[in-house]
Parts: sequence; structure tokens; C-alpha cells
Amino acid sequence: MFRVLVFSSLFQTGMEAMNGLHIVGDLYDCQVDLHTLAYTDGLREVCVRLCQDAGMTVVGEHFFQFEPAGVTGAVLLAESHLAIHTWPEVRNVTLDVYVCNHTCDNRDKAQKLFDLMIEVLKPREAKTQNIERGAI
Amino acid sequence: MFRVLVFSSLFQTGMEAMNGLHIVGDLYDCQVDLHTLAYTDGLREVCVRLCQDAGMTVVGEHFFQFEPAGVTGAVLLAESHLAIHTWPEVRNVTLDVYVCNHTCDNRDKAQKLFDLMIEVLKPREAKTQNIERGAI
Repeated sequence: MFRVLVFSSLFQTGMEAMNGLHIVGDLYDCQVDLHTLAYTDGLREVCVRLCQDAGMTVVGEHFFQFEPAGVTGAVLLAESHLAIHTWPEVRNVTLDVYVCNHTCDNRDKAQKLFDLMIEVLKPREAKTQNIERGAI
Repeated sequence: MFRVLVFSSLFQTGMEAMNGLHIVGDLYDCQVDLHTLAYTDGLREVCVRLCQDAGMTVVGEHFFQFEPAGVTGAVLLAESHLAIHTWPEVRNVTLDVYVCNHTCDNRDKAQKLFDLMIEVLKPREAKTQNIERGAI
């Protein structure tokens, strides 16, 4: 996959491509079915599908199963990454969506992906922070 | 791997385990050798080794090679994750280290891992933000 754009100089492109939006979410008392929070099979499918639904390009993923329950996972994107960790015993989740400006301004896609994840996970309470990355 | 502690209630343990420190770094003009920034083989080895050196438990990793150069990768930890994206054409990197309180307060380990990564990557300029996760 080619991430480097063909127009402009490599230097200028690289500087701009690094910019982006990182949405950090701490999600509490998620009302999604417990299986999705507890096991890799359901959570992996949700994360990959919603990345695609938000218009992202998935280039890899890895999800790890804790015993007896709980998941840590990452979806690698051409536009950066989604990272998720679940504590099903308390129905809590930490969620990161970082989307750099791969071939265009992707802020809207980052927010869309985050919102889609919230729709599925259904937290009763959420603390979110939007962090601007790369702008110096 | 068992992430759930055996003492205290599951509820209380899960709430505390979610807390942690997330260090967000935007690193500019990294003086590490260009091969490490450009290709998965070198960068994967560095990231996994430094996670282990910082006392983390690596439970998985995935690194993706962009063409002609550039890497996006994640190391999954029992204590959460490291995520990295490189733009070798401008020697810039975005680096995330999120370490939750897996079996104890891991803030020192998060800072140690981040500092070890900085020592290797050698950015001439860095913008870092420390984000408290999970405390509600």
C-alpha cells in the first residue's frame, strides 16, 4: 500500500499527513451484549466492520483473549489505528481512535468511527477527549 | 493469561484496573537510523524489546509495511498497548503508550517505556501529553 502522496514534495506531504485527530474514550457500564465485551471473536468483527463502515482502510488487526474473559485489541489502518481494551466484569472499555490525514482531512471519519463504536457498545457513561496530533 | 485479580471484588478490581496513564507523543526529526523508521523488521524488534525492558508483558503485535517506506504498528500488552506510526520521509513518528493498572500502579512503567523509545528514536523535537485514563 502506498501512503505517500504523489503531489507536493515528500517533505510537505509527510508533515501534513502526520496531522490528525485522536479521540480517547473511557466508556463505563456498556450495555452491549456481554459476549462482545468478553471474547475476541465478536469484538474483532465489530471493530473491523465499523472501521470499514467509517471509510477506513484496514491493513491488519490483532486481538488477544484474556482468561476467563476480557479483550485487548488493535486494528491497524492506513489512516492510523483503533485500540480497545475491555473489562467485562464491570462492562467498562477504553477506546482510542487515531486517524491521521492519510490522503485528505480525515477528522470526520475519526468522529464517525468513534460514534459508530459508541452506538454498538452503548456506554451509560463516557469520558472522551479529542487530541490534535502532529500540529507543531 | 488471567488479568482479573483474585482479591477484592470483581467490580472494584475492574474499576481500578482500568485506570492508568496514556502518554501521547508526536516526535519530529528522529535521528534513529532510517531503516528503523522505514521498515517493519527493525521497528518491530525495537518496540517489542523495549516493552519487555520496561517490565511489560507482550501478548501480541502486528506491524504493517507501507510502500515504499513507513510503518504502522501496535504491540498489545497485558497492561494495554504501544502504538506507533512512522513517516520516514520527514523522520516523524507518532507514539502512544497506554498502560493501565493491570496488577499494580504501572505509571512508572509507562514513563519508562516512553523514555526508552525516545532514547532510541532520538527526536530533535517532541510534543508529549500525559492523559489520565479511567478515573471517573
